[in-house]
Amino acid sequence: MTGVWHCQAVTDTRTAGAVRQGSLRELNLAVVLRRIATADPPPSRAGIAADTGLTRATVSAVVDDLITGGLVAEAAPAPRAGAGRPARGLRLAADGPAGLGLEINVDYLAACVVDLAGTVRHHEVRRADLRPVSPADALARLAELAGRAHTAAVREGLTLAGATLAVPGLVDARGLVRLAPNLGWRDVDVPALLTGHPLPTEPVDDVPPLVVENEANLAALGELHARPDGPRSFLHVSGEIGIGAGIVLDGALFRGARGWSGELGHVTVDPAGPTCRCGARGCLETYAGQEAVLAAAGLAGADLPADTAARRLADLAAAGDPATLDALRAAGTALGVAVAGVVNLLDLDTVVLGGGYATLAPWLRPPVVAELADRVLTAAWSPVTVRAAALGPASAAVGGAGAVVRRIIARPSGWLAHAG
Amino acid sequence: MTGVWHCQAVTDTRTAGAVRQGSLRELNLAVVLRRIATADPPPSRAGIAADTGLTRATVSAVVDDLITGGLVAEAAPAPRAGAGRPARGLRLAADGPAGLGLEINVDYLAACVVDLAGTVRHHEVRRADLRPVSPADALARLAELAGRAHTAAVREGLTLAGATLAVPGLVDARGLVRLAPNLGWRDVDVPALLTGHPLPTEPVDDVPPLVVENEANLAALGELHARPDGPRSFLHVSGEIGIGAGIVLDGALFRGARGWSGELGHVTVDPAGPTCRCGARGCLETYAGQEAVLAAAGLAGADLPADTAARRLADLAAAGDPATLDALRAAGTALGVAVAGVVNLLDLDTVVLGGGYATLAPWLRPPVVAELADRVLTAAWSPVTVRAAALGPASAAVGGAGAVVRRIIARPSGWLAHAG
Repeated sequence: MTGVWHCQAVTDTRTAGAVRQGSLRELNLAVVLRRIATADPPPSRAGIAADTGLTRATVSAVVDDLITGGLVAEAAPAPRAGAGRPARGLRLAADGPAGLGLEINVDYLAACVVDLAGTVRHHEVRRADLRPVSPADALARLAELAGRAHTAAVREGLTLAGATLAVPGLVDARGLVRLAPNLGWRDVDVPALLTGHPLPTEPVDDVPPLVVENEANLAALGELHARPDGPRSFLHVSGEIGIGAGIVLDGALFRGARGWSGELGHVTVDPAGPTCRCGARGCLETYAGQEAVLAAAGLAGADLPADTAARRLADLAAAGDPATLDALRAAGTALGVAVAGVVNLLDLDTVVLGGGYATLAPWLRPPVVAELADRVLTAAWSPVTVRAAALGPASAAVGGAGAVVRRIIARPSGWLAHAG
Repeated sequence: MTGVWHCQAVTDTRTAGAVRQGSLRELNLAVVLRRIATADPPPSRAGIAADTGLTRATVSAVVDDLITGGLVAEAAPAPRAGAGRPARGLRLAADGPAGLGLEINVDYLAACVVDLAGTVRHHEVRRADLRPVSPADALARLAELAGRAHTAAVREGLTLAGATLAVPGLVDARGLVRLAPNLGWRDVDVPALLTGHPLPTEPVDDVPPLVVENEANLAALGELHARPDGPRSFLHVSGEIGIGAGIVLDGALFRGARGWSGELGHVTVDPAGPTCRCGARGCLETYAGQEAVLAAAGLAGADLPADTAARRLADLAAAGDPATLDALRAAGTALGVAVAGVVNLLDLDTVVLGGGYATLAPWLRPPVVAELADRVLTAAWSPVTVRAAALGPASAAVGGAGAVVRRIIARPSGWLAHAG
């Protein structure tokens, strides 16, 4: 039950600068561990040496450190055709450090634990309408879920090395939630409110005990996590009560100057359109946000949790309800207009429909694809793939937990100092 | 007059992987040269050692190599307060390798030479309506400008180490112009057409003799070049006959999967708006492209070069012509709607109005600023700066030439092998 409340951005890549002798060990640890994390099948020491250009002796010493520190384990030997003792493959440890992913959304709380190899080892989602609840009470409830996640992690021999909290709003670098419009939060100091409920993470160098991050950004990381062999650059659209997007470029989240990128819900679809909750006119949310779609489907005022609403709409659409089909077609068209703008700007070739949109993808996808074909200047040369997200709702907690373990893989020396 | 026709993308960053002994010299050369390129005032050998963590002996050996190879020169000694011989500062050489920047646009050709220190040493812009001219003839005329640039470079003791050609269209990785709508080009194989007119560049390792790149992307690099102390991330909008944008993130061009990012002119402003040349409806170009603005100002059919059109509109606006003022206000509003979408998505805090928009910035800026204030979700916490570009038209040729020298600074070993 340690954990100083200290926040920092998810992506802080170290730039190399000059290479000094002192950092060479750190660099080699990271290079070897990354090779083990990405190679398939599990690589041998000799294979790692061949791939990285390091000497066999260096690789062996580095691998010994990683095994002693609990980051790497030897896999069962693979059958080999040739003579001699088969080389033993190396894989990420299943009982070393793990990441804790937490989420506060409009209508649920979630906590999950992801181990170093990326496996989800614990996942709890608890429904609750959090709009009438004060931020302090919401965080107190979340701390209970975190406690249960900790118990589960300990039972499995895992150590929680850091936590990421997803919030559906604008979060600054210190973890202050500037604005979460659909939750009704403004200037909520999450770290200060959590001082009475310390999270169950161990202090590990290079891994902040808590990062607070935008939910749509983490949901995009969840998609990356769930499809390790999928595209490395894509737009992930989270359709919940609000609409957010996460932009993943070359396997990393693009956060923008302050981490406030991806506000797709407030991209203008029609400058003279309906007034949005944000004060502007014609934002995408006024056409394709949950409230607008429910109203267009004849369910105005139905105050449903996001996944319940998506399932209800999907059931009606599957039954051929004309109003629902029209509502989803209109929402998909507006979404397509906004997403076409993103593709024209960023030259991405994959769009992932996440959150409630994952459930509604069979109906949203055709109008989105049609708008992209009409509006993307390069559509003739390279069609854009539009598909449903692998995880759907609650992907943000998985993405947040995965971000913690990716930090350890990127810089194992901090964990080794802790384990040693 | 050498130069094999070989094209490749402007940004191909080498990722480090493991550090091998053989590449250590290359890395140290690059680290020291970058320090000399960015330090102000010119740093001494001792200062570089302190900043980079390299030993004095290593820095001295590396600096000797850079001076011998013609990349670095000793600056006049700076006055020093203390006792002893003043340390001599090091700066980039003014007579080493240089970059050749070329541009084919709708109504002009341009060539310029930029030296290693970033100074423009030669710049020629030749007006010509290139729409009725075949691509082969346009490239033949461009080769004449390149020849004069070569003569000027030789006279100044410079060696052209590579060329970048800006084209207002979609360019693929092999230098094929897929589509340049305002020039009327489709599937034009620029390298093949240039085989009869070899460019006057020397073959240098790590520097492709020719890169063909989108004009708006290079114009953004031109802005980066012209304001070395300006922001490192911004959106640069080129308002010419068409509208393109270059996205600069942390000092580097964001090109997208195929280099086709930044098609701001085809972002939808109103899905039911006028039909665009691209076939879609309500694209930004139909509101804020040169033709639309001239028509709204009562100058329909005036087939003017982009910078002439911008000056004509600016003169009319300065004289208080109501139709022109209305036309610019409407264009600025549409531009503001589209740019607000970009800021919502990418969380950028600087927007640069370039090309003809630089001339028209006094009239375009207020409506753009107003739309950003209304439509950017985070506007309350961090206002977006909107300003005119430093270079305006023809910035692409400077950006392209600068890209060549930046390549050499990033990897000096290729040039040193050539010079040695």
